[in-house]
Amino acid sequence: MARIAVVAGDGIGPEVVAQARKVLDAVLPGIEATEYDLGAARWHRTGEALPDSVLDELAGHDAILLGAVGDPTVPPGVLERGLLLKLRFAFDQYVNLRPSRLWPGVGGPLAAVKPGEVDLVVVREGTEGLYAGAGGALHRDTPAEVATEESLNTRHGVERVIRDAFARARRRERRKVTLVHKTNVLTHAGSLWSRAFAAVAAEHPDVTTEYQHIDAAAMFLVTNPSRYDVVVTDNLFGDILTDIAAAVTGGIGLAASGCINPEGRYPSMFEPVHGSAPDIAGKGVADPVAAVLSAALLLDQLGHADAAARVTAAVGAELAARTPGAPLRTEEVGDRLAGYAVS
Amino acid sequence: MARIAVVAGDGIGPEVVAQARKVLDAVLPGIEATEYDLGAARWHRTGEALPDSVLDELAGHDAILLGAVGDPTVPPGVLERGLLLKLRFAFDQYVNLRPSRLWPGVGGPLAAVKPGEVDLVVVREGTEGLYAGAGGALHRDTPAEVATEESLNTRHGVERVIRDAFARARRRERRKVTLVHKTNVLTHAGSLWSRAFAAVAAEHPDVTTEYQHIDAAAMFLVTNPSRYDVVVTDNLFGDILTDIAAAVTGGIGLAASGCINPEGRYPSMFEPVHGSAPDIAGKGVADPVAAVLSAALLLDQLGHADAAARVTAAVGAELAARTPGAPLRTEEVGDRLAGYAVS
Ligand SMILES: CC(C)[C@H](C(=O)O)[C@@H](O)C(=O)O
Ligand SMILES: CC(C)[C@H](C(=O)O)[C@@H](O)C(=O)O
Repeated sequence: MARIAVVAGDGIGPEVVAQARKVLDAVLPGIEATEYDLGAARWHRTGEALPDSVLDELAGHDAILLGAVGDPTVPPGVLERGLLLKLRFAFDQYVNLRPSRLWPGVGGPLAAVKPGEVDLVVVREGTEGLYAGAGGALHRDTPAEVATEESLNTRHGVERVIRDAFARARRRERRKVTLVHKTNVLTHAGSLWSRAFAAVAAEHPDVTTEYQHIDAAAMFLVTNPSRYDVVVTDNLFGDILTDIAAAVTGGIGLAASGCINPEGRYPSMFEPVHGSAPDIAGKGVADPVAAVLSAALLLDQLGHADAAARVTAAVGAELAARTPGAPLRTEEVGDRLAGYAVS
Repeated sequence: MARIAVVAGDGIGPEVVAQARKVLDAVLPGIEATEYDLGAARWHRTGEALPDSVLDELAGHDAILLGAVGDPTVPPGVLERGLLLKLRFAFDQYVNLRPSRLWPGVGGPLAAVKPGEVDLVVVREGTEGLYAGAGGALHRDTPAEVATEESLNTRHGVERVIRDAFARARRRERRKVTLVHKTNVLTHAGSLWSRAFAAVAAEHPDVTTEYQHIDAAAMFLVTNPSRYDVVVTDNLFGDILTDIAAAVTGGIGLAASGCINPEGRYPSMFEPVHGSAPDIAGKGVADPVAAVLSAALLLDQLGHADAAARVTAAVGAELAARTPGAPLRTEEVGDRLAGYAVS
């Protein structure tokens, strides 16, 4: 039976994760879950974001379910670099998977796009690029200050994530992969991405391909999101595109994500894209749908495709039954989702 | 009298620039304009994108009006690095100014946003960041290939563009500046931008300020674009945000931009954000509004605020009178705009 590590985290994290666990227990009884106390609260208490001993323990699990970490009282970068990115890099989670669907019942912001018309997945590279942490500063706090950030890209890292994107496209109906980069300005990294993409595409003649610059893709995600099927892109571009995709499909409250080590050598991690939302924390009004959809991605990754499909269908039923704008109670949504998932 | 250099360029460039000149001549008779033949066609003919001798000649003008350069037959990066970016860097055009308005009469894609509700300007840094051209590759075309792109940021370069943004905010009604960066991941550059922003903000107590991460800003531009007044950001983030802003205000066909050297030590350059659109080139159906609005920015920069306001008002009249979706003729739009501008 699956052994999962649960990092509920800060703010609304514990509330939404509780519902995700409720649904997981309903569709796959017997999951063994261990809670880990990480996040802003622990950092304030101990000064540590992710002790190596905890990292070692986490490594022994099949997957990690994460709620949300972060708080305005923690300086920028501390939990991001010290916890979230540390996990992504330490566990070689090179596929950052972010599906977006405009669900029936959900009113997206775009006048011309109807529910059901958007169903895309961004395969974002998760272990390279500008997230590598390569950079520095000189002459800090003087007029001569200079600061650098370096984007590191390897053929190894780029090719493997592109392969994952093509493999996913083959399992989808439209079988289309869009590469997004900025080859006209970032000519070195852009050339590497383009050549790796062309090489992998040549092995997949049954998959349609296209290329777009990041600025154009950001625009088309707004004017014509239904044109996308699988989008593969670098770490930072993926960060930006997935928030736009979330925005056009009804908001970040519904957006799930997986940080995946496809080979299963290390645990993959699943988390809602939203943050800890300290303003509504503890009130029982956070929407747990993104956390529950993240649990569905977890189930899928662990080989429980049927259970994953049941959870996803439950979310569809829940969203279709909602009255737009009506208040919701986190617990009640979790109860309903668990019910739908086993019915 | 103003001496401007005109680079009509490729594709629809010449058609739309002709209308911009028509309008310029109408509101400010006597402008001296010299045409420069640069772009894909010239590159194919001569192998040169921007000879130094032409760069020297351009330097002798008060401003440059550019149509569009580029063509699918030119490899990525050649005209971007060799012409557009070369001009931005050589002429120290550190303010890349991109206003976005949802004009009355224009249907934006967002259901909840009504014409008149969006009026923002992105002040994009134009001479640093990932556009510096610092980067390289090793072991090309082998499995060991690595490619880098470096973002270079100086206190000098960051502070001056932030100052420009605050100066512009002071001349606007809402007096608000939003800094957009990714301080939680790009900690070195992010820290430099944040500290420079805080220092300049302290000198402008009459201006409201806020900070957003690029991913959040990309999302809010879609869900709530009217919250923005002046946005200041780095070169790449500005590239992406301005295309989103164009998308939510009716498309890139209406988006104008200026690459400005505020001190006037070098000529500033004004260009529509759209490209050369080879598919509709020569048909006389391209919308010249973006080129004409770019000409208005040019007038403003050269100190002809009244003439600029007349051109902007002419565009407002033209757009308000349009039937959404109706076909247009480039020439006729130019004639109408020139008429409105002097009436
Ligand atoms: C919190 C931050 C480090 C993270 C990222 O930039 O990857 C977040 O924005 C995300 O998209 O998961
Ligand atoms: C063509 C390209 C170099 C350019 C940029 O990235 O700046 C364009 O996208 C723009 O926004 O002006």
